[in-house]
Amino acid sequence: MGRTLGLILALLSAPIVLIAADWNILYQKGKQPKHGVEFNLKNYCESWRMNVELHNIREFEVVPEECADYIGKYMNSVQYKVDSERAIEECTVFLSTSCSLKRDGRDAWIFDVDDTLLSTVPYFKKHRSGGEKLNLTSLEEWMSNAKAPALDHTRKLFNELKERGVQIILVSSRREHLRSATIDNLVDVGFYGWTSLILRDPSDEGKAVQKYKADTRKQLIDQGYRIWGIVGDQWSSIEGLPSAKRTFKLPNPMYYVS
Amino acid sequence: MGRTLGLILALLSAPIVLIAADWNILYQKGKQPKHGVEFNLKNYCESWRMNVELHNIREFEVVPEECADYIGKYMNSVQYKVDSERAIEECTVFLSTSCSLKRDGRDAWIFDVDDTLLSTVPYFKKHRSGGEKLNLTSLEEWMSNAKAPALDHTRKLFNELKERGVQIILVSSRREHLRSATIDNLVDVGFYGWTSLILRDPSDEGKAVQKYKADTRKQLIDQGYRIWGIVGDQWSSIEGLPSAKRTFKLPNPMYYVS
Repeated sequence: MGRTLGLILALLSAPIVLIAADWNILYQKGKQPKHGVEFNLKNYCESWRMNVELHNIREFEVVPEECADYIGKYMNSVQYKVDSERAIEECTVFLSTSCSLKRDGRDAWIFDVDDTLLSTVPYFKKHRSGGEKLNLTSLEEWMSNAKAPALDHTRKLFNELKERGVQIILVSSRREHLRSATIDNLVDVGFYGWTSLILRDPSDEGKAVQKYKADTRKQLIDQGYRIWGIVGDQWSSIEGLPSAKRTFKLPNPMYYVS
Repeated sequence: MGRTLGLILALLSAPIVLIAADWNILYQKGKQPKHGVEFNLKNYCESWRMNVELHNIREFEVVPEECADYIGKYMNSVQYKVDSERAIEECTVFLSTSCSLKRDGRDAWIFDVDDTLLSTVPYFKKHRSGGEKLNLTSLEEWMSNAKAPALDHTRKLFNELKERGVQIILVSSRREHLRSATIDNLVDVGFYGWTSLILRDPSDEGKAVQKYKADTRKQLIDQGYRIWGIVGDQWSSIEGLPSAKRTFKLPNPMYYVS
């Protein structure tokens, strides 16, 4: 499905630019829009972000140019922190009330790495907060420096799971060659004691990330793991079968991984 | 799953009240919070709303009391309209680019009724925008008056689907006894020409709404329908199998249907 929808973006970009131009004019001149509702650039960018989080907007390659500043502000705002903290609080509530842990070494919880444990905000700050087309070589170079800061709220949950004897499994779309940099970075900012760090090896690179992650969960379940929760910042980390008892989506409007 | 999670809310309400009290104090006195990030009531309510839309917060029975005003403002704002319009625009893009319609009378699209075609905002305006526990008798009495306004953006999509020969199927959690009032209301505000209006009959009332809606889709598929899209304001209208080629979630932080 992700594949089929991949087509949309190319087709979408034209209307987006067109509509955006409209909006910019409206914003500057305060004219009555054709759409029936009077709104400004902030309304537009906020609705763009909301619809990304609702998974109505998919497969976008870049943040719309005129929203790059808005998205940058959001990612560096108190609101982003509070939104993320609330998502993690819901994990904690679920863990305390709805997980009958067996403590037999097979209770498991899955985390993404980027923008779930480690923040890529410092990287994207230099690349228009997603408003510039992603350059994988440059992003991987930044990742290999192992200087990504921790997301504090997720670290709290990570440690709580560890204390309760839940096996922590990291399933990332980072590629194998970044393994040692990823481990260094994670340990350096306080993430250690996980059970497994699963990265994409060359044979997985042909697969969509959603399929790679679902296939990985299948293998984990076949090994006897009970996956209680998944925390990720992308719908591709959460959707697809087999799933977990509950899934939790952190906000991230900077990029889309299908 | 919805059932199990039903437990959470009762357990959740205590911490929510506690945290809310904290937040209120902070907001009034501007003190440094214990949570590490300084934030105010607006940040809190916005993060509550965002996490409802992300489907991290589930099974809530009421909007947190201190956020009722904020949610009321949102539901009557330009932002709510722009957010909803953008969701519908994504449907239109999907329809134009990714649906190979066969026009054999079996292409289908599913809509919810409340807060998808018809707005319950006028009702909830009188009931603290969801900040008051739902009284089904009173809501059904309001529905039986058949005075709910249309959601204009969805009507545009509804008409476009009709023009393209797509069968429109309305699947609502409204109960059978509201059938004639529902039809009157829909036609009165410009929705007509649908193929089927499916309401819950007494035998479905024991089921969770998500199961009732998934079972309905199963029956439609067995009848030969190809369900291209679902538009709903609740995750229970969208999740569960069988699904559709794409699903679209409209914003609605006023209530939760599981």
